[in-house]
Amino acid sequence: MITNILEELLNVGIALSGEHDLDKLLDMILMEAQRLTNADGGSIYLAEGDKLIFKVSRNNTFFKRWGEAKTRQMFKSFEMPITKKSMSGYVALTGKPLNISNVHCIPENLECSYDPSFDKKNEYNTVSMLVIPMLDRENNVIGILQLINSMDADKVVPFTDDHLKITSSFSSQASVAIQNAKLTKDLKNAQLETIFRLSAAAGYRDKETANHIKRVSSYCRLMAKKAGLDSEKAELLFWASPMHDIGKLGVPDAILLKPGILTPEERKEMEKHSLIGALILKDSKEAVIVMSRIAALTHHEKWDGTGYPLGLKGTDIPIEGRIVAIADVFDALSSKRCYKDAFPEEKVLAIMKDSRGKHFDPDLLDAFLCAMDEVRAIKAEYEDKEEDFDKFSDIKNVDAASLLK
Amino acid sequence: MITNILEELLNVGIALSGEHDLDKLLDMILMEAQRLTNADGGSIYLAEGDKLIFKVSRNNTFFKRWGEAKTRQMFKSFEMPITKKSMSGYVALTGKPLNISNVHCIPENLECSYDPSFDKKNEYNTVSMLVIPMLDRENNVIGILQLINSMDADKVVPFTDDHLKITSSFSSQASVAIQNAKLTKDLKNAQLETIFRLSAAAGYRDKETANHIKRVSSYCRLMAKKAGLDSEKAELLFWASPMHDIGKLGVPDAILLKPGILTPEERKEMEKHSLIGALILKDSKEAVIVMSRIAALTHHEKWDGTGYPLGLKGTDIPIEGRIVAIADVFDALSSKRCYKDAFPEEKVLAIMKDSRGKHFDPDLLDAFLCAMDEVRAIKAEYEDKEEDFDKFSDIKNVDAASLLK
Repeated sequence: MITNILEELLNVGIALSGEHDLDKLLDMILMEAQRLTNADGGSIYLAEGDKLIFKVSRNNTFFKRWGEAKTRQMFKSFEMPITKKSMSGYVALTGKPLNISNVHCIPENLECSYDPSFDKKNEYNTVSMLVIPMLDRENNVIGILQLINSMDADKVVPFTDDHLKITSSFSSQASVAIQNAKLTKDLKNAQLETIFRLSAAAGYRDKETANHIKRVSSYCRLMAKKAGLDSEKAELLFWASPMHDIGKLGVPDAILLKPGILTPEERKEMEKHSLIGALILKDSKEAVIVMSRIAALTHHEKWDGTGYPLGLKGTDIPIEGRIVAIADVFDALSSKRCYKDAFPEEKVLAIMKDSRGKHFDPDLLDAFLCAMDEVRAIKAEYEDKEEDFDKFSDIKNVDAASLLK
Repeated sequence: MITNILEELLNVGIALSGEHDLDKLLDMILMEAQRLTNADGGSIYLAEGDKLIFKVSRNNTFFKRWGEAKTRQMFKSFEMPITKKSMSGYVALTGKPLNISNVHCIPENLECSYDPSFDKKNEYNTVSMLVIPMLDRENNVIGILQLINSMDADKVVPFTDDHLKITSSFSSQASVAIQNAKLTKDLKNAQLETIFRLSAAAGYRDKETANHIKRVSSYCRLMAKKAGLDSEKAELLFWASPMHDIGKLGVPDAILLKPGILTPEERKEMEKHSLIGALILKDSKEAVIVMSRIAALTHHEKWDGTGYPLGLKGTDIPIEGRIVAIADVFDALSSKRCYKDAFPEEKVLAIMKDSRGKHFDPDLLDAFLCAMDEVRAIKAEYEDKEEDFDKFSDIKNVDAASLLK
């Protein structure tokens, strides 16, 4: 390979390694592969078990014809079984690349064939094709990189042997970057699930449902974005807000579960949960725990200074607390609890608006109310079902042995 | 640069990207840098704030003289301020590499100088030196790669311009790999802290201390290793075991906190915590949650089949449950609780041994008892202090506003 291509590959490898968002990474890989081979189009499939999952596609002809956004919408993710019939399946099974100069005259000894339905459906003429396996360090196929129609000016030409060499080397770099991005995603998912599970478990004591926590977190992220917080902080709030009520672990059953109205002394005990939450979460360097401490401490502060525990006013209340306050109250009003039915949306919104500038930050409330379509979608996605209200009903009939597996 | 070096760099980059353990990665980086420049020795420093942290060192002369293990022991991690006086500090401040053919004749216009104390102390003669900044994609210095004495057969020679070019390119690859390894470490730390915090918070209700959870997890990991589980599974158990008692969230205060002996009915309610824990943690794909479900469900099973909830016998009890059982009982006996003092070690061990083959898996217990030195070290590291027993004592005097920061 020529030196300047190698130097380019070195730089590309560094750029790929720095991208941890899997979708962005796959798009970047495909774009670079197109550039290195002058391909008009291409796709990436990831292997999962005995299936190939179509992940991303780029095609200059389609981008010109329909625009990039519309093209992407047209090519949604799909799965296909790994069999030797399709070109990508063949490469996934053999682990060897395929360089076909004309898919309409595939050598007879090759088991796979070209499926013309894609061309027919999209009025496209696939001619040359380069299909490269993406291998991990143990030579397992983790995905397939498929490139279509190498271009020489306006003419479709075959992919060259150099193209094959370059993309093979490139695909090794791409594979390790993909695995790293997957690892990052897996680690994040594992933490998010841990947070939601344990926060929901803590909520079991006062019959908050697991879905309550998911709704509130989602409302918080939505509001943060609408209020113009950067997307990283909005995401962090999604992670941190489930823990805002963790201090209720320090409130005795007798108060937490008391039906009817609390005495002033009991109320005082109950209100300690924001402070207890902050104590549970104090002295951490982890961004998510730090933010959850702030949310725990200040989610009962009120805009007009009449909240607790600090009686902060206006923007002296950290934005985490102001956001969680709106999301939490909205969800309490708009969902069923064991002691009350859900209020109709009209009534909920009237109550919320009535508290604008008293309980709630007026700007944040406006941002929230402007996003009611998205709010309703979140509410529908995490709707409580009847059985959610009796968490431990299933313990009576559960087959304990089934939980072993 | 010549083609085969570039191809080598491509492969090295892929190998570095695949290594997620920061210490192993730094060692690998240093070894490759030595190989690429034929250097006798070298070190890597990572930048943290206004300090350089010495992380790893390799030196062929010392490895020959003292052996690798002893050499590594001699060069423990240390910190140094970033100033222009030292060569590595100079490179960290300027972001430019230094190639010095003889450190004993440093050009007068250079602000930094060579500190001869290292050579004196270790009977070594540093002559040529190559100091390379490791830069992130925004050109911030994340570390320093320092190479000593390029060798030509047995003679020390200066590092060449090619060495400078190669290691500069290599250091970009190394930087992104280091940042990825750090990200992985940060994500893992964040999750581990979340697990310990929230599990400890749940334990607050029945006055288990946060250190109890840390000790039990550490005993579990130790036992798993001693019993020959692979180190990944042992590590996973360290993460999963803190959640083994999470089902106590489903046990009412009246039973959980009752002083004295429980009635048979209360006991039955109490024993439900293992089943409730498994229900809280069921239906997850995350390895850590899956393992914690098994530990929650089976940590009160007994080797002779007299445990609950399933009455499993011997190796029918998953190893997670068998391990947690030993760690949990050992810690309960050997630490102070609000209702009892810590038993002396002799008494604890007598009780444990008496339960060998009855309550406990005999092989696992033997593995645990053989590791008493390490057990004692864990016990000492996470010793309960007097204030740990009154979790919310600090709520009386806490300055709530201080928790805002």
